[in-house]
Amino acid sequence: MGAVKTKRMPRAVREQQMLDAAVRTFGQRGYMAASMDEIAELAGVSKPLVYLYLNSKEDLFTACIRREAKALTEAVRAGARPGLPADRQLWSGLTAFFTHTARHPDGWAVLHLQARTHGEVFAAEIAAVRAEIVAFVTQLILAAAREAHRDPDLPEREVSGLAEALVGAAEALADWANATPGVTARQSAATLMNFAWAGLGDLMAGRHWTPPDDDTDGGIHGIHGGTGQVG
Amino acid sequence: MGAVKTKRMPRAVREQQMLDAAVRTFGQRGYMAASMDEIAELAGVSKPLVYLYLNSKEDLFTACIRREAKALTEAVRAGARPGLPADRQLWSGLTAFFTHTARHPDGWAVLHLQARTHGEVFAAEIAAVRAEIVAFVTQLILAAAREAHRDPDLPEREVSGLAEALVGAAEALADWANATPGVTARQSAATLMNFAWAGLGDLMAGRHWTPPDDDTDGGIHGIHGGTGQVG
Repeated sequence: MGAVKTKRMPRAVREQQMLDAAVRTFGQRGYMAASMDEIAELAGVSKPLVYLYLNSKEDLFTACIRREAKALTEAVRAGARPGLPADRQLWSGLTAFFTHTARHPDGWAVLHLQARTHGEVFAAEIAAVRAEIVAFVTQLILAAAREAHRDPDLPEREVSGLAEALVGAAEALADWANATPGVTARQSAATLMNFAWAGLGDLMAGRHWTPPDDDTDGGIHGIHGGTGQVG
Repeated sequence: MGAVKTKRMPRAVREQQMLDAAVRTFGQRGYMAASMDEIAELAGVSKPLVYLYLNSKEDLFTACIRREAKALTEAVRAGARPGLPADRQLWSGLTAFFTHTARHPDGWAVLHLQARTHGEVFAAEIAAVRAEIVAFVTQLILAAAREAHRDPDLPEREVSGLAEALVGAAEALADWANATPGVTARQSAATLMNFAWAGLGDLMAGRHWTPPDDDTDGGIHGIHGGTGQVG
């Protein structure tokens, strides 16, 4: 039994190393251009071993999608703090999201670009993950609206639309942030708070949403004039 | 000369019929499942004629992407009215966008789902169109911010992020609206105005953005409590 367990551990570790190498290669080169030779070399293993463990390029890519999707959804769920006021919840969830996508640009490229570009099987994989995130955000908005006690009539379908808009905006901003040198996760989260929480109406009038003081991590370029939370 | 012109017209007309059939087939069945036989039959022409005019399935699909992208961007540009106040500009632009995507669901599926799912060449085609739309929206937001005279400091990079967020939100809502029975273009535009103009902060507090009275086209479900424009 002990021997079996010792043998299993290295396999799991090696598999993660292969996935690390694969995510990096798929994310940077794209699915088509990525070669199994390159992935094996980067992982420090032989190509036959990659095939033995992960079966095929398709299966390896699917394993990458699933691992990166799990990591991202866990990061976002961990970032949401149900006890906070609605704007602070949104701020912490968005900060967690953009921090994760900024720290794992190859993982994000696999999920949001590569997985959707190379056929319906991978696209279906990522559509299911996205639906889960939209459902999660829908519940967050519904809970926040209920807590606010101001608009019990906000219908679930309207909230679904808002959740779709929020997720779509966050996806687009994550792509943009990773492609634009010097944009930090905090800046992206602040831009989306200004857009989605304060709204363009307040923004045009010079009323910005400003991040809470207690979690400064480097200041925000491009957010001026706000002295408090709007809304 | 006259004879040549008479011969040319039917070709242009037939080509449009082929493209109509192709957009419908690609949009409804997906790029992979769509067959050239089906497209030819739907267009009422022979398959060799489709190949003669459009060369290959790839070229036909590229022609579909370009035609639908042109139609969509023209509809959005026509909808933007630079003379109006910023919120009315945004409202009319969004209404034009969602009206177009609702009326041409197959065209939208070709652009936003199929073109991105079937390889890097088509994905690059659509990325270029998207970049053009983001640049257009960026200029609209900059112009609106300048007109408001309140925040001349709103930096261009921050505005680029806002434009990305807006375009991403609109894309996601268009997908959702076309997949959700009974959602009208006006409802989608109102949801996005509530999200992006009023902001979730105002929305939680029961302050909605309400569409102007002068262009009613059937009322809005799910938007209650607003008595005037917010912001």
